Amino acid sequence: MEFKGSSILSISQFERTDIDRIFRVADRMEPYAQRQKITRVLEGAILGNMFFEASTRTRISFGSAFNLLGGEVRETVGFEASALAKGESLQDTARVLSGFSDVICMRHPESGSVADFAAASRVPVINGGDGSNEHPSQALLDLYTIEKELRDRGRQLDGLRIAMIGDLKHGRTVHSLCKLLMLFQRVSVQLVSPLELAMPRELVEDMRAAGIHVDESDRLESSISHVDIVYSTRIQEERFASKDEADLYRGRFRLNQAIYTSNCEPNTVIMHPLPRDSRAEANELDSDLDSNPNLAIFRQTDNGLLVRMALFAMILDVTHLVEKYSTEVRWHNPRLGS
Amino acid sequence: MEFKGSSILSISQFERTDIDRIFRVADRMEPYAQRQKITRVLEGAILGNMFFEASTRTRISFGSAFNLLGGEVRETVGFEASALAKGESLQDTARVLSGFSDVICMRHPESGSVADFAAASRVPVINGGDGSNEHPSQALLDLYTIEKELRDRGRQLDGLRIAMIGDLKHGRTVHSLCKLLMLFQRVSVQLVSPLELAMPRELVEDMRAAGIHVDESDRLESSISHVDIVYSTRIQEERFASKDEADLYRGRFRLNQAIYTSNCEPNTVIMHPLPRDSRAEANELDSDLDSNPNLAIFRQTDNGLLVRMALFAMILDVTHLVEKYSTEVRWHNPRLGS
Amino acid sequence: MEFKGSSILSISQFERTDIDRIFRVADRMEPYAQRQKITRVLEGAILGNMFFEASTRTRISFGSAFNLLGGEVRETVGFEASALAKGESLQDTARVLSGFSDVICMRHPESGSVADFAAASRVPVINGGDGSNEHPSQALLDLYTIEKELRDRGRQLDGLRIAMIGDLKHGRTVHSLCKLLMLFQRVSVQLVSPLELAMPRELVEDMRAAGIHVDESDRLESSISHVDIVYSTRIQEERFASKDEADLYRGRFRLNQAIYTSNCEPNTVIMHPLPRDSRAEANELDSDLDSNPNLAIFRQTDNGLLVRMALFAMILDVTHLVEKYSTEVRWHNPRLGS
Repeated sequence: MEFKGSSILSISQFERTDIDRIFRVADRMEPYAQRQKITRVLEGAILGNMFFEASTRTRISFGSAFNLLGGEVRETVGFEASALAKGESLQDTARVLSGFSDVICMRHPESGSVADFAAASRVPVINGGDGSNEHPSQALLDLYTIEKELRDRGRQLDGLRIAMIGDLKHGRTVHSLCKLLMLFQRVSVQLVSPLELAMPRELVEDMRAAGIHVDESDRLESSISHVDIVYSTRIQEERFASKDEADLYRGRFRLNQAIYTSNCEPNTVIMHPLPRDSRAEANELDSDLDSNPNLAIFRQTDNGLLVRMALFAMILDVTHLVEKYSTEVRWHNPRLGS
Repeated sequence: MEFKGSSILSISQFERTDIDRIFRVADRMEPYAQRQKITRVLEGAILGNMFFEASTRTRISFGSAFNLLGGEVRETVGFEASALAKGESLQDTARVLSGFSDVICMRHPESGSVADFAAASRVPVINGGDGSNEHPSQALLDLYTIEKELRDRGRQLDGLRIAMIGDLKHGRTVHSLCKLLMLFQRVSVQLVSPLELAMPRELVEDMRAAGIHVDESDRLESSISHVDIVYSTRIQEERFASKDEADLYRGRFRLNQAIYTSNCEPNTVIMHPLPRDSRAEANELDSDLDSNPNLAIFRQTDNGLLVRMALFAMILDVTHLVEKYSTEVRWHNPRLGS
Repeated sequence: MEFKGSSILSISQFERTDIDRIFRVADRMEPYAQRQKITRVLEGAILGNMFFEASTRTRISFGSAFNLLGGEVRETVGFEASALAKGESLQDTARVLSGFSDVICMRHPESGSVADFAAASRVPVINGGDGSNEHPSQALLDLYTIEKELRDRGRQLDGLRIAMIGDLKHGRTVHSLCKLLMLFQRVSVQLVSPLELAMPRELVEDMRAAGIHVDESDRLESSISHVDIVYSTRIQEERFASKDEADLYRGRFRLNQAIYTSNCEPNTVIMHPLPRDSRAEANELDSDLDSNPNLAIFRQTDNGLLVRMALFAMILDVTHLVEKYSTEVRWHNPRLGS
């Protein structure tokens, strides 16, 4: 696809080569995210960070990514504005707000709303999550993390073996990840969930049709014993009829260091879209895993910054200029030691 | 008036020459708003964007205008702070907050509150709307839009013929616009509203005393047939005792393409302060007008950015320096095509 | 202490020499806060301004301080994010958010929470207030104000005579100030409160053990007659069981110009942590004091900006570079006159 001037609404926009281009640009963002250098390439540009549904970490990640490229951020959180309440169409809102910025990131609780907004916007729009539908930058950061972790182990995405665990029925992130995996060769996927929270049938069939080897199970231990990646997820309580119903499933597939050591191959990577539920009754990833170097959950969020920087740079067509407008960092970088 | 260092609280501050100066500065902001160039003239300056009442688009418009001149924005939304709840006077709040920025934009639900705040502030304050009282930058962007639309048609503000339609009793924007029009010659105004929502008597008398030809009516078609501008407004539901009472008037004066074609002169401009109520029962400006090139409603909000940039530049006395501190844009400008 | 790369969590971190270093850096920030010059020393740095409890003025003060050094600010207000509600630990939140910025300022309603957060953060954290526990930058700005006011009168912190008045039981600011005063010589403190709202016994004993002369009383007039500083505080209604209980104490120690003139030595300084309660039933500092040049309450908040700039500059180790990256101000500075 042509990234310059394009909106990023769905992972279905991407072919395999597009994914690869995004990831190679993301790689080049590392020194800037690590503050080894700073760049002013987007000086004067404005991101409209429009979060009509609150999500602190995603909002801050997009905003910081834009700042790290030298741009400014104007933002909104929640439905503070009564314009929509006063009967304004989302198209009108888009026409107005897109006059104030150069690119928009938008999150909204309704499926499809971001695409509607983008159709009327005069600047490119990145979908920051539209209800249960899509959250493409999350899917990209997951896949980018998998690729980097495999790379460190001398492997690559073709041939990936992954287990996905938990609420596979409601988890937007695992759905998106499965769709992206169809672009790769010789992938095998272990799906582990309660029967009632299984991956949607249609998606399983699509995966198989795309050549992915899919196994389904409700037993954790056997499913994680021969994989490269264990991708754990939270019970999405907010999608259940009641907390009681969610409680039926909470805590069914807990991973801790003992289970990991007894069952997993050495250096099996542990991922999670976060937040992980650390309450005793859930605790899908025990805190005794925090010292396990294969726990990649915070590398995931760090990689999110790189992927979002890459998307901004590609949409605004500055990937070749990032270096040119870079300078040295003047302040003490606490990440690098003294 | 002297703009340098002055607060902008009310349109009654302006003489005709002041209006003209603002509009000529606004014209010069166009290349920066269109991202043909960027300027860093306000580098290091901070706008305190204090919205004690939420209004996303006005807040983002002021913030973006300041960013486009190279400045930074700190802001607040709603009465998050408990300082006022803890019994602090607005004067104390003003003294404190004005220590943190170079200019303040303030919105507040109470009439007169922004003027009180400005009296105690140590930096200039722009009124971003104080209840039903004033919202001077909105009035200026309306008049600026009228001037530009007329200019494109070889006309000017002197001799303007305008129809104002809808809830003329509660509409702050039409009241302000009427006051500004008193500064010009040979203006004629058609007022179209339900009898109960008529323009306040005193304002009609003031307009007539200022030489404006005013007609009042409750019939849409005949009133829009010989005007340059049709300025439609929303029923201000929030100012009625109940939704039911507001519903009595909603949808009384709908404009659509068929009515426009049958009644208006060619190239009659259609304006609205937005948001327009697009619900079926209201729908004061039908979406079939969206492809009519004379629909100027989104040019209004775009012009708002220019007017706000102009006000900031004049208050901080940098109009002569904007160009000097400008550079080329480095990124792809989606507005300009590839 | 070593400031470079350190978190600022509690005033107990500071020795007397540390205080002195902060204040001398704060002095050097004055021309930048007054906009006589601007500096870009923190260009490219990002402050994560994480206010999990709302506090407009503290949040804006930290954000503006960072902007004044040339950095960018990403922020959050309140518990908008549901991550913590979804069972995420504060440690996980810290690990994620600290990936997005270079330094974090955090406010949170629970005592000890900021220290927990800082322990897991990958970048330095400044405590912006954790419940009734600590708010070190407020304590520093109070002490810095006292030092500056004394300096203007040819005096210094050693030998200070201060009266603290009001709700001394709940007032976090007076507790912190008392602790800081233990670092100085020949200090005498007059404590004035209702018996039920007296300074905690342990703190009084600590002060005496540190050599401070402490007197306690419930009479205002006699206590303020031989002091350099009168530090008044608000009844902390939110810490009482009911508004009625708080009302019992409200308005007990009112200071106005007549009482000041009759009792205080000339040029006695009046301070207050703000907000002052200006309602008739409280009115601890009457507005007739506003024209008294010894009323230092707004100099306190101005000094807060200097102290916060100093902390950022020291943590990020740029105090020696602030001047080097400075330029002239291009815009009209309303504070300086035309």
